[in-house]
Formats: sequence, structure tokens, C-alpha cells
Amino acid sequence: MTVLYPRVALIGLGLIASSMAHAMRANGLAAEIVGHAKSPETRAIARDLFCDRVCDTAAEAVQGADLIVLAVPIGAMAAVAAEIAPHLKPGAVVTDVGSVKAAVVEAVAPHMPDGVQFIPGHPMAGTEYSGPRSGFATLFQNRWWLLTPNEATDPAALAKLRTLLEGIGAKVDTMDVAHHDLVVAVVSHTPHLIAYTMVGVADHVRRVSESEIVQYSAAGFRDFTRIAASDPTMWRDVFLNNKDAVLDILGRFTEELFVLQRAIRMGDGDHLHAYFTRTRAIRRGIIEAGQDTAAPDFGRGAEPPKAS
Amino acid sequence: MTVLYPRVALIGLGLIASSMAHAMRANGLAAEIVGHAKSPETRAIARDLFCDRVCDTAAEAVQGADLIVLAVPIGAMAAVAAEIAPHLKPGAVVTDVGSVKAAVVEAVAPHMPDGVQFIPGHPMAGTEYSGPRSGFATLFQNRWWLLTPNEATDPAALAKLRTLLEGIGAKVDTMDVAHHDLVVAVVSHTPHLIAYTMVGVADHVRRVSESEIVQYSAAGFRDFTRIAASDPTMWRDVFLNNKDAVLDILGRFTEELFVLQRAIRMGDGDHLHAYFTRTRAIRRGIIEAGQDTAAPDFGRGAEPPKAS
Repeated sequence: MTVLYPRVALIGLGLIASSMAHAMRANGLAAEIVGHAKSPETRAIARDLFCDRVCDTAAEAVQGADLIVLAVPIGAMAAVAAEIAPHLKPGAVVTDVGSVKAAVVEAVAPHMPDGVQFIPGHPMAGTEYSGPRSGFATLFQNRWWLLTPNEATDPAALAKLRTLLEGIGAKVDTMDVAHHDLVVAVVSHTPHLIAYTMVGVADHVRRVSESEIVQYSAAGFRDFTRIAASDPTMWRDVFLNNKDAVLDILGRFTEELFVLQRAIRMGDGDHLHAYFTRTRAIRRGIIEAGQDTAAPDFGRGAEPPKAS
Repeated sequence: MTVLYPRVALIGLGLIASSMAHAMRANGLAAEIVGHAKSPETRAIARDLFCDRVCDTAAEAVQGADLIVLAVPIGAMAAVAAEIAPHLKPGAVVTDVGSVKAAVVEAVAPHMPDGVQFIPGHPMAGTEYSGPRSGFATLFQNRWWLLTPNEATDPAALAKLRTLLEGIGAKVDTMDVAHHDLVVAVVSHTPHLIAYTMVGVADHVRRVSESEIVQYSAAGFRDFTRIAASDPTMWRDVFLNNKDAVLDILGRFTEELFVLQRAIRMGDGDHLHAYFTRTRAIRRGIIEAGQDTAAPDFGRGAEPPKAS
């Protein structure tokens, strides 16, 4: 591949930024990768593992950069945007990787100077690990990366960013900011909250010991704990910043759950069977859309787990 | 290995029974595997794939069998037990593979003749596939198989059954019937119901199209749809037959969810962060207990998904 951006600045050096760095490097898409993170430990790891140059401040890191990626928790976006704004090169493109878009646009856009394009983005990829050592070059392979440009976005700047993201393996789509936040409330944010809740409940049912929960956790619960192990700071900020959409979906969820709960209490097997049959069809659609494999792993990973 | 049971009869020939047949055959644990299923199609597949002999009735299948495995939906257990009872060989051992134990004991035990041991069992293994073609010999590798004997159970019969189950790869533990049903309500049944519910909600949020849900389903939701694709009949019977424990855990779940929902509404980030940090620790316990791997797959399978 050819270099798309001579200098890329990564602000925040966790799972997403480190994976981007590994992937851009593997594909020769950036000539120089500059990084900044708040923690000196993180900066030292990034210097060793994936950055050409690491700066002590975000302001310094963005100087002369052609592409700036804001990869900090959503709650930190406004402060970072204010800090870097005076140091951005005219013609630079700023993007972010936050899971919520309206709140990020509100936090970042007012600070952006004329001549700089801000194109919000959301890579729908992750693992339950976080931090600068957790990144790997194939994280974005075959995963969606949603961009939420608006009518003021320069088409050429958008096209170039899309080429970069496709170059690191992602499938790119564009979407309206508000619609994005509703879609992710349904397919990601509310499921995460529910998984967190169930894992918390399991932990304080006193008649079942923690060792029993851990020992006998079957497929369903293992998947939940995997989800519930995600980064607490990131998820706190997601829920605080996508409040309206999440509360809307949560309301529907509890209504629906109460109907199923009532069917269990009343012994209405037909209702349960019909419901479970419908949800099975949705799963088939997801396999057909290529977002998952049909391998019967049920949370085990494709290979049988090693004996332990 | 040496033959433990000269003749094993499998009643019901779905995922669990077919996996048992493949595994017993691979390890030489049974000399003859006889099967019965209600559906003629299933019987034909079982004859081709994993049974030495297939019978048109359960009564015929159990004749002369040393071990009988009831692998039918929980709702069908009582009728099967009544049908086979007069045909059981003295000294035979009957076990089952239902996910709920009190209801199965109630359905089966009254029919068992003197001289026959009924030892209820529950393999904590599965995939989202069902039917006679879905079985594979390694399904039980490193998975728990819980047995719920009582004070009348013959220790020698129990020890032999345990040896068989360990011989097909399972880790075996024994547990009181009522306690079993509470443990699985926490680690399996309630998580399944919640996953079913969330997938159902996603399906009828009208502003988000089904294709968007399918296309953008991220890690959290993919795990849920995988769970929600499980066999509808089996799960209907689970909920109808483990009603009390599931309703108890569901009540705790909704209370807990409402507290988190309120924290989101009030913007209480500290509460959310503390909660998410606690759940992360539970996940670590599960990895350390060897029930899952630490590989960062997050529902992707251990290998990166193939491009599609």
C-alpha cells in the first residue's frame, strides 16, 4: 500500500489506538506514528511497541500531523479537543473512536478551527482487554467502522479516511449521528448493561457460592462475563453519554422481560416457544450477514479449550 | 478403554445423545449403542451416523440395556419413563440429561421399578445447534456433568456412571437436586432468558431496521444472538420446569437493573464505574477456574473470522 497520511497522531493509547498503530504499520499506511497518553507508563509501553515518537502532551503530539485520532474515553474528549485545537495544522483531519457520537460531536466540534475537518468515527471492534499492550493488527478485520460526517464534511477528506480504515481491514459505512446512537444502544450498549447486571446478580446470590458460580458457569453465563469484563471507564462514559437511547431501549427491554416472566409464572409454554423460535431466526440472519461464523463454539472459541 | 456398559440405550437422539454416542464409540466405552427418537427422519439419520441399532419405540430400545439415557425434552420425560418402565432389565441404570433436576425426578422416579437405579444428570455443555446431525465427540471435553444422586443411590452404580462420563471427557460433580436447580438458574437459565429478551427487543425497535441490527451487531449482541438461537422446545421446558428458581433470580435481576438504570438517568458515574469494576473481577475468576480461555476473542472464535 502507499502512505495515505505522512504523519498520524494518536491521542490516547489503549486497545483501539494500539491496534490502529499495528495495523497501519503492517500495511504501510502512515509514514510516522506519533502518540500521546496521559500516563507515563502507557507512553513508555507505546514507545517500545508501536509509536515512532511519543510526546508528553497532546498539544505537542498533534503538531504537523495530517490525521489526528482521538482515542480517549468520551468524558475526556472535550478537554483534549480544547488542548489540541490551537496546534492543529490547516488541512488536518481529526477523527475519534468513541462509541457514542452525539456527545462526542458536542464535545469536540466547537473547538475545531476553520480549515480542519472533524469526521467522527466508531470502530465496532473490541476485546475484553484494554491498555497499550492489548492491541493487535487484525482487530478491525471484517468489522464495521461507522463514520458520521455531516453536510459540511469535505468529500475528499472523507474518502481518504475511508481508504485508511479499509486499508486496516474495516468495512466502512456512514450514518447520521442520532441514528448511530440509537443503533448502538440496541446492538451494543444495552446488551452490555444487561450482561453487567446479570454478572452482578450472580455474585450476590448468597446460597450459591462464588466458587460454584465460577466453576459451573455454562455457555450463557460465560458469554456474559466476557462482555462484563470490558473497560469500566469506557463503559461508564458510554452510558452517561448515550443516556436517552439506552434508557429508551432499557424500558422496552424490561417490558418485554416482564411479559416473558409472566408467561413463566402462568406456565404459558406456547408464548415462550413462539418467542424463542423468533429469536432463533434473527441469529440465522446474523450468520448469513457474515458478522459471525456458524461454528458451534457457543463461547468456547473455535478450538476446544485446553485442559487446565 | 474397556467396555463399561455392554448395551447403552439412548432415548431421544438430539445434540446431547448424538454427541454421547460419538464419544462413547471413540473411546470404546459401550459395546452396542441402541437408539430411539420419535421422528422417523431422526431415526434414519441416527442409524446412518451413530447408532448400531435403532428401534421404533422406546420400550423396545431399552430391552436388555445396561444403561438408559433419557435425552428428551423435560416435558416428555414422564411419558417416556412410564413407557419404558416395564421393559427395564433388573440392575439397569437410568440417567437423564435434563437441565432441570427436581422436575425430572418428579416425572421419572415414581415410574422406576425396584432393582433399577435412577441417577439424574445434567451435562453443562451445548451449542446453539440441535438435532441428530449436530453431535460431535468432543462436546463434553472439560465441561461439567452434574449428577444428583440421593441416599438410596447405589455407590457402585454411581461410580460406574461417573467413569463413563469422565471417559467421554466430562468433569463430574454431585449435588443436591434443589441446589442444582438454583445454581443453573443463576449461571444458565436466567442469562438465557435475558438474551432471548434482548434479541426480541432489537427485532421490534422500528426505527432501526432488521438489516441494520444484523449488519452492525457488535460483540455484545452477537454473543446474545448465539445464546438466543438455542433449541426453543428445550428452553421452553427449562423455564416451565425451573419456575421458582428462575423467577427468584429474575426478580433480583430486575431490581439490580433498575438501580443501574437510575444511575444512568441521574448521571451517577461513580456507581456505574464501581459496578463494572466488580463484574470484571468475576470474569477473571472464571478464566482462572479454567472454564474459558483468556484469548481475546470476544465472541469471534479463536481464529479471525474468514472474510465473507
